[in-house]
Amino acid sequence: MPRQHDRRPDALRPVTFTRRVPRHAEGAVVARFGDTEVLCTASVEDRVPHFVRAQRGAKRGWLTAEYGMLPRATGERTRREAAQGRQGGRTLEIQRLIGRALRSAVDLRKIGERTVIVDCDVIHADGGTRTAAISGACIALADAITPINSGALVRQVAAVSVGVVDGGAVLDLDYDEDRRAGTDMNVVMDGDGNFIEVQGTAEAAPFTDVQMDSMLALARRGIAELIALQKDLLVSA
Amino acid sequence: MPRQHDRRPDALRPVTFTRRVPRHAEGAVVARFGDTEVLCTASVEDRVPHFVRAQRGAKRGWLTAEYGMLPRATGERTRREAAQGRQGGRTLEIQRLIGRALRSAVDLRKIGERTVIVDCDVIHADGGTRTAAISGACIALADAITPINSGALVRQVAAVSVGVVDGGAVLDLDYDEDRRAGTDMNVVMDGDGNFIEVQGTAEAAPFTDVQMDSMLALARRGIAELIALQKDLLVSA
Amino acid sequence: MPRQHDRRPDALRPVTFTRRVPRHAEGAVVARFGDTEVLCTASVEDRVPHFVRAQRGAKRGWLTAEYGMLPRATGERTRREAAQGRQGGRTLEIQRLIGRALRSAVDLRKIGERTVIVDCDVIHADGGTRTAAISGACIALADAITPINSGALVRQVAAVSVGVVDGGAVLDLDYDEDRRAGTDMNVVMDGDGNFIEVQGTAEAAPFTDVQMDSMLALARRGIAELIALQKDLLVSA
Amino acid sequence: MPRQHDRRPDALRPVTFTRRVPRHAEGAVVARFGDTEVLCTASVEDRVPHFVRAQRGAKRGWLTAEYGMLPRATGERTRREAAQGRQGGRTLEIQRLIGRALRSAVDLRKIGERTVIVDCDVIHADGGTRTAAISGACIALADAITPINSGALVRQVAAVSVGVVDGGAVLDLDYDEDRRAGTDMNVVMDGDGNFIEVQGTAEAAPFTDVQMDSMLALARRGIAELIALQKDLLVSA
Amino acid sequence: MPRQHDRRPDALRPVTFTRRVPRHAEGAVVARFGDTEVLCTASVEDRVPHFVRAQRGAKRGWLTAEYGMLPRATGERTRREAAQGRQGGRTLEIQRLIGRALRSAVDLRKIGERTVIVDCDVIHADGGTRTAAISGACIALADAITPINSGALVRQVAAVSVGVVDGGAVLDLDYDEDRRAGTDMNVVMDGDGNFIEVQGTAEAAPFTDVQMDSMLALARRGIAELIALQKDLLVSA
Amino acid sequence: MPRQHDRRPDALRPVTFTRRVPRHAEGAVVARFGDTEVLCTASVEDRVPHFVRAQRGAKRGWLTAEYGMLPRATGERTRREAAQGRQGGRTLEIQRLIGRALRSAVDLRKIGERTVIVDCDVIHADGGTRTAAISGACIALADAITPINSGALVRQVAAVSVGVVDGGAVLDLDYDEDRRAGTDMNVVMDGDGNFIEVQGTAEAAPFTDVQMDSMLALARRGIAELIALQKDLLVSA
Repeated sequence: MPRQHDRRPDALRPVTFTRRVPRHAEGAVVARFGDTEVLCTASVEDRVPHFVRAQRGAKRGWLTAEYGMLPRATGERTRREAAQGRQGGRTLEIQRLIGRALRSAVDLRKIGERTVIVDCDVIHADGGTRTAAISGACIALADAITPINSGALVRQVAAVSVGVVDGGAVLDLDYDEDRRAGTDMNVVMDGDGNFIEVQGTAEAAPFTDVQMDSMLALARRGIAELIALQKDLLVSA
Repeated sequence: MPRQHDRRPDALRPVTFTRRVPRHAEGAVVARFGDTEVLCTASVEDRVPHFVRAQRGAKRGWLTAEYGMLPRATGERTRREAAQGRQGGRTLEIQRLIGRALRSAVDLRKIGERTVIVDCDVIHADGGTRTAAISGACIALADAITPINSGALVRQVAAVSVGVVDGGAVLDLDYDEDRRAGTDMNVVMDGDGNFIEVQGTAEAAPFTDVQMDSMLALARRGIAELIALQKDLLVSA
Repeated sequence: MPRQHDRRPDALRPVTFTRRVPRHAEGAVVARFGDTEVLCTASVEDRVPHFVRAQRGAKRGWLTAEYGMLPRATGERTRREAAQGRQGGRTLEIQRLIGRALRSAVDLRKIGERTVIVDCDVIHADGGTRTAAISGACIALADAITPINSGALVRQVAAVSVGVVDGGAVLDLDYDEDRRAGTDMNVVMDGDGNFIEVQGTAEAAPFTDVQMDSMLALARRGIAELIALQKDLLVSA
Repeated sequence: MPRQHDRRPDALRPVTFTRRVPRHAEGAVVARFGDTEVLCTASVEDRVPHFVRAQRGAKRGWLTAEYGMLPRATGERTRREAAQGRQGGRTLEIQRLIGRALRSAVDLRKIGERTVIVDCDVIHADGGTRTAAISGACIALADAITPINSGALVRQVAAVSVGVVDGGAVLDLDYDEDRRAGTDMNVVMDGDGNFIEVQGTAEAAPFTDVQMDSMLALARRGIAELIALQKDLLVSA
Repeated sequence: MPRQHDRRPDALRPVTFTRRVPRHAEGAVVARFGDTEVLCTASVEDRVPHFVRAQRGAKRGWLTAEYGMLPRATGERTRREAAQGRQGGRTLEIQRLIGRALRSAVDLRKIGERTVIVDCDVIHADGGTRTAAISGACIALADAITPINSGALVRQVAAVSVGVVDGGAVLDLDYDEDRRAGTDMNVVMDGDGNFIEVQGTAEAAPFTDVQMDSMLALARRGIAELIALQKDLLVSA
Repeated sequence: MPRQHDRRPDALRPVTFTRRVPRHAEGAVVARFGDTEVLCTASVEDRVPHFVRAQRGAKRGWLTAEYGMLPRATGERTRREAAQGRQGGRTLEIQRLIGRALRSAVDLRKIGERTVIVDCDVIHADGGTRTAAISGACIALADAITPINSGALVRQVAAVSVGVVDGGAVLDLDYDEDRRAGTDMNVVMDGDGNFIEVQGTAEAAPFTDVQMDSMLALARRGIAELIALQKDLLVSA
């Protein structure tokens, strides 16, 4: 079964990162992976949570992330979490992942007693929203913290999904592929090709060592492209 | 004190209504009033709430609205309502207003046992988000229900804010004007210039009959412009 | 269709404001409009919310209002909001209105760093509970703050509902009229006949300029009567 | 230390039960024990909870109770439970007690598949609110169910508090006595002087067999008076 | 109908209190009454709640208790309270009872500004979980506070359930007996046989003075045995 | 730095799986990994969630998991989630992982329209609670579903944590090692050594391909031991 738009198994969808105008936030980027569109903002506040302040020694900052999906970002309308009175398990899992990934990109001692809040809100969803969020938010984060300390961003991070679909490994799954995937894996890496996070799940059947290696190779290739795209934008800041 | 961009007291900000592409929703419009930007979607579901189903007689549909603000739509970041576990009083008040206004635009008996859910999400806020939401959502609503029954939309509705700022009545307040306003009024009207809803509040000092008349005249003028803009888009559907 | 008790369109129901004995509260008044009965208390606490304390400059107080309905104040029992775990949108909308209206009656700089909490609890409901609440709470408020500073109450406020029922404008709707009303408007005014708040909603069909004028004239007349009733009680304090 | 109003240790405060007018509820009684005032309503709904419906065999009804306290029923204002998003442990404990006590008064098989909801709302509190609630609600309950089946009320129930204050047993404690009490006991009995519920708590020091007997004797005496007062009202129905 | 395991009406089930190893808590005891098994821990924290700190005069500590039931501690699985978003009324009622009972065992002035948190978690339930919790937690409490001040434990407390089953009074009801009981009573006493708390409820029919005396006599006998068992363990500490 | 108890890097802690007696649950196992102790129960209910029932075609069952931690399972007391009114993000993330892992072990079409609820409650925590939970729950699950259909368990699943501590890869981290780990990975595999889930996180610095391979090799070795331990127990059922 061919991929949409004649995409090869190792091809990303068309990806763009766009700085948003107008904006209130210290950093604001729209990340698009095909029809997936995520607005990523980075806000800086002059205080840190209690558990950071309570730690002995040098003053440092904190970074936290929140993730949301507009109700009709999806094919069928999703119930609004604010109206339901709580964030679901999927949302919490994703925003914890985004926060961990981006914290690894920052030297928190270099931003002083400040908190960076990264908000990733999905405007339109077609698979891979959490990896698009991480990849775009990295630029919003850079825009927000570089004015504070030009050395605060210690590495770029980017993320992509890979999976086994119809028996073969593919890169950057859209929603349709994600539903058919036997295995689904999200990979976060830095600019040197080292791992920040790997989360792989066998949806249908257990997956083998060989399949894992194939997926990781595709992820490495895709992330290198994303890192290059980010670099273009960061240089132009 | 002059208005931003040399705007006259009776002038709207630059207003655009744009159908969104890509979209999942049956109707999807981005409304912009100056720097205020609201994504309005209309979703159709094949069921009605219990209290509608329970009513005797002919089958009919229902319309409900939800309103949200992305956390960094505002100058200072607003806490995410989903993370706080509840929608605030302001949010509930606004979405009840939007729902009432749009229900008056529809003949609910003509859409069968369906529910239209209107979601208005503020991407960027600079005053007048609720009136931008109503004005834009009317088009999303039309796009969603006209395919069901071409006569279901019984009237256009549009809304604008007016107020008394520095002693004079002005149309379509931005955030800065809103903060300085002595009186703040939201007006919803139909295409014939009749009232759907009027909500006026004395923020600083009580307002007089004369001030009320001035504000209503401005509102009538602004809404006529908005109705015309909507008509252009509806014709082009 | 004649009004209950041969009431003319411009007539209030029998209205009484009664100071409550015994009472714990600094101010406590029972407001009755026909069969609608609301207990209004004003409590004074020696602290202010964070957002008031945080403001620069002179020390000032705050006023907030809460509204509730006993479960069987209504014809059919309403579910208890405390048991449901949240206040509904209607409740929040009403208590925000009451708070705004009463804040306009007080010079918050004259009560020091204190918070006045106005509680309006509906014991029996027959339409017009929010306007009865405002009208009665004004007296409870006066009783609570006058001992602190005899100049703290800067104006009386009173409220009444008006509407279009069976095509004609009527004053002070009971529950039955409210259900049949094509338009429903709540008006809050001060002792000089100026507006504090106007909230008008087309329930069935849009309403015209002429209807609006008729309703406002009735409101003005009714509120003048309520202001006089309040004055009698305030003088006798 | 003498009791307020020269009350003897074995004397109730002035007690009245008054049917409320106007009322929406099937039964509505205001119970006053001194300055304690509780509005008790009984509402009948034509459905039963799932766990009642699920039981095999003959059709039967259900009775449940809810308890609330107006925020300024107390000397210092209590936070509104609806605004806090949950009922406190004290409230739940009290309404469970009221429900159990009143269920023992009804033959639930005789009211068909109906639910009686008893609401006890404290308008003014001066100790003994839960026992006043039970004693007054019994009459509201009778008024609500006797029209359904004249044999549904199988016994009267009434309740009173007793305690050990300054070393001696006293009947029907007011708030001041309650705070000083070494032991505090709530007793619910039927018209034959048998026990429905006993809840005794050592507040300061453990209490003895002898003290328990003294308290139970006072409770028996007080409840007999309350049963007689109820009977007068039930006969006059 | 004979009791399970040929138990006589005045016999406890096999009861053991076992200190838990390994443990993190300052005190940790597993209480078993037949097949009922409750893990009781006492944790000491170096702070007190606001309402304790706010009191004038000498510094003192606080004790609070929490109760929980593992979902499959029961014959049919009970829904997890954490997943439901709130503790039920039964849970709150029980943990309030446990807290009151254990506070009576401690001189809070002797533990300084510390809070003891007693957690009672039911691993397996077969009736009498709250009384097993109190009886076992007393030992965990002693283990936690005696190192702080050897005189802080001012009395032992133990608890047992009694009831009227098939017309006769019985001691220490298991779940099956509890369901058949006409009356159910929980009694908490100290080492001198004085009362800390009595909670008796007529489940089926009101109970008499004579039945109450029989139940209290059984409770006194059972609690004396429990106090002796506790003493063995406390001596061996 | 040597491991506690002279453990080699590739050694599990002492692991035991013990069937629990007495038990109410269809399956009940206590899993111990060193000082980590988790009670795993599997409960079978004769109904399925709506989204399972709604699917076309053959009838099938469902499996869901819940995870909890007793408040004093940890070195410092953790606040009780039931008392806080919600499950935290970590809890939701873990129970979603447990659910996915165990669903992969079952052929849901072979258990009919039933739901298996797996509860994993941590009695004592010393690192690796989620992997101990999965490994133990697999046996509880087998005990619960094998009586329904002896072929319903289609594979064993077991899990273990691995990490990079002080620069070297180690198997089965205790709490102290977990806090020092630069990378932390949880691996779930089946009896054939294929992957069910991999979740690796760089806590301090990104990790390399080589480190990942070392960790996965250790995980494979540890899981093989756990699978063998499970097999012993399953054979003895």
